[in-house]
Amino acid sequence: MEQQISEEKFNKLIGKKVKIVLEKQEFCGLMLESYDPTLVLLKLENGYNIGIEKNKIKEIKEIPQEKTEPVKITEIKVKEDLPEVAIIVTGGTISCKIDYKTGAVKPVSKPEDIIAITPKLAEIIKPVVVAPFLLLSENIAAQEWKKLALVIEKNLNKKNIKGVIVLAGTDTLHYIAAALSFMLGKLNKPVVLTCSQRSIDRGSSDAVLNLTCSAHAALSDIAEVMIVSHATTSDNFCFALRGTKARKMHTSRRDTFRPINARPLAVIHENGKIETYDSYNKRNEGKVKAVPVFEDRVALLKWHPNLSPKILDFFIKNKYKGLVIEAVGLGHIAVSGKFSWLKKLRETINKGIVVCFAPQTLYGRLDPFVYATGRELEKIGILFLKDMLPETAFVKLGWVLGKTKSIEKVKKLMLENLAGEFARHISEKDFLV
Amino acid sequence: MEQQISEEKFNKLIGKKVKIVLEKQEFCGLMLESYDPTLVLLKLENGYNIGIEKNKIKEIKEIPQEKTEPVKITEIKVKEDLPEVAIIVTGGTISCKIDYKTGAVKPVSKPEDIIAITPKLAEIIKPVVVAPFLLLSENIAAQEWKKLALVIEKNLNKKNIKGVIVLAGTDTLHYIAAALSFMLGKLNKPVVLTCSQRSIDRGSSDAVLNLTCSAHAALSDIAEVMIVSHATTSDNFCFALRGTKARKMHTSRRDTFRPINARPLAVIHENGKIETYDSYNKRNEGKVKAVPVFEDRVALLKWHPNLSPKILDFFIKNKYKGLVIEAVGLGHIAVSGKFSWLKKLRETINKGIVVCFAPQTLYGRLDPFVYATGRELEKIGILFLKDMLPETAFVKLGWVLGKTKSIEKVKKLMLENLAGEFARHISEKDFLV
Repeated sequence: MEQQISEEKFNKLIGKKVKIVLEKQEFCGLMLESYDPTLVLLKLENGYNIGIEKNKIKEIKEIPQEKTEPVKITEIKVKEDLPEVAIIVTGGTISCKIDYKTGAVKPVSKPEDIIAITPKLAEIIKPVVVAPFLLLSENIAAQEWKKLALVIEKNLNKKNIKGVIVLAGTDTLHYIAAALSFMLGKLNKPVVLTCSQRSIDRGSSDAVLNLTCSAHAALSDIAEVMIVSHATTSDNFCFALRGTKARKMHTSRRDTFRPINARPLAVIHENGKIETYDSYNKRNEGKVKAVPVFEDRVALLKWHPNLSPKILDFFIKNKYKGLVIEAVGLGHIAVSGKFSWLKKLRETINKGIVVCFAPQTLYGRLDPFVYATGRELEKIGILFLKDMLPETAFVKLGWVLGKTKSIEKVKKLMLENLAGEFARHISEKDFLV
Repeated sequence: MEQQISEEKFNKLIGKKVKIVLEKQEFCGLMLESYDPTLVLLKLENGYNIGIEKNKIKEIKEIPQEKTEPVKITEIKVKEDLPEVAIIVTGGTISCKIDYKTGAVKPVSKPEDIIAITPKLAEIIKPVVVAPFLLLSENIAAQEWKKLALVIEKNLNKKNIKGVIVLAGTDTLHYIAAALSFMLGKLNKPVVLTCSQRSIDRGSSDAVLNLTCSAHAALSDIAEVMIVSHATTSDNFCFALRGTKARKMHTSRRDTFRPINARPLAVIHENGKIETYDSYNKRNEGKVKAVPVFEDRVALLKWHPNLSPKILDFFIKNKYKGLVIEAVGLGHIAVSGKFSWLKKLRETINKGIVVCFAPQTLYGRLDPFVYATGRELEKIGILFLKDMLPETAFVKLGWVLGKTKSIEKVKKLMLENLAGEFARHISEKDFLV
């Protein structure tokens, strides 16, 4: 189908409220700047953006607006006498603001932008904004984790900086948090990762509470890598979750990050009240020394019934160094039948690939000694990573293999509790929190 | 180290309570028959079994027992006038009984054995036991799913059989449940899958409540494939969960099976009271026609940051027909940077492999239209499977590709709600239940 409306007309309507008529549907919303020239990007009333193919549009017209006051953004000045907190902007929904004139979504890059999102911040901290890269979190990988670790190290070792807040996309935030937990080692000050599931221009945005609680966390005495975000669907308080024990558990809810096999490190209230629920490393005068290494030839593989063990050939052929397998139950995969993994696993391990198991159930602890299958797999040299999250296990294995090539040292380190990745105690109450 | 104690001595102690002395440790427990000749298998007081290498044992001796009554197994007769329920024994912890004379763990194979586990059953149903195969659930794959579907079909179409109960291991029970949901199609009677996390000889065994509630479910009017097991850690009641919307979420808890993006079909009390919470297909006079097919060249792949898209070459090279990728967030994977998947995904799809996305968060619904990444991936032909569980998505894709080779038909079927795999509605309350 050919485009019926001129590019000029489309361009003129950017930033305006429009009605779009298709063959069988109509949409109303704010027309945004689109990065895809074949699409019109429309922000709907419910806050979601949709892309509509230009050549399917029969008609587009501006909706005359009642005369209302424009959104008033109060000019708030950064207060110079507040404690300085480094805000490291890496991308994601929380790093963006809407330019109400053009409708374009743009990353924040100045202290004033951060304050504009959350005026309350200006009463708590003096933000020092750093933007080492701007990426959606699905595009952030080990290369960026290393870069981030170095930027954070630098800021943690500055006398004037009281803590660090990292703004990133939610999708892989728990992978980033795990990576920083290992790469930064023992901390002297808080490192807070925060995010938002809904953009700042939506009534239901979680950015404000998340940022406010993150500021309180950054000034606290909890010198740990932690994810701070909505604890519930209400705007009451946030959880601070240990970077190695958190996981994104819902595609769209604001309380998506949950503690797994752990309790929250702390509950943080909007007014700055902090209740801690677990032991933690306290703020101290030490210096941080980052170890920004990662072995790329490491993967996480989710085992499932009927999966051919031949897939291990890919890792052998490409000279992988380590593999985390998400096993079922207490640490089981098929060891008999057409798709038995025993022989191929032995071959994999004999090639010098470190193979670890992590729980596919997510919750609970692996135990190779309850059933015969577990004992058999343990005997051939699989490392059972107890209650470690599969995502954390993958990140840890990549980091450990970046540090050392000695298989014996790798195995030893994988079973040591380096960054709270193993629970000291799992309570009955820690399930599905 | 050489074995210090004779085989003869070990053999004489089987079935006895013993004390085992190692270099630095001691263990007391019931000595079981071990399938591994190099190990002594010991059932500890806490109910767990451990294997101890014979050559590490310094000393083993029988613990003199106070004279107590032996465990009394009341002889309970199967009552002929109760409704008949087919009990299909496939293996797993629930399918086993301990022979207190030899200590050996053996599968049940007669109606009397089932009754011996749960005497209450004899008041509810007349069990008709079938054992098509005996496998630990990690060794059950598509071949067994097909066999099982045929055995169940046969039983569902018998006039005298009121319902079917399948006893299987917990580890892959949700994969089995999904497979049966698709292979059996529209049901005429209930198909209940049940299991236990702890063996029947342990005080904390969940077998009794699970079997009792399963019997009630099998006689109910809910003609669906469902998993029936502990709803909480107490022995109060069970959930009946839709076979396509359930997942094992804990390595060891008795309430391990949880509904994901769904409410329980029903709550089933020990006394037979059933409260339903969702719409369901009612018991009817129809005949069941199983479609026991499965395409083996289908896999589930969990995407993660830093994963090389080269892994897709394995599936291309081995002529796979379909792939479910666990994507992050609303359905995203890397589309820029060193490990961008865009190009390789296009190649995969161009080779005729059907590629679907399912949510790595497990909870929530994918939506390709919120962010640019989603739109880009949708455009190259990825199927976004909304709120379908990754495990269910894998099973469905294998089954659909077993039914038809037409890519267009496969895509259409994948988006149709064939067995409740898509939620009609997800409530705020359905998170982390």
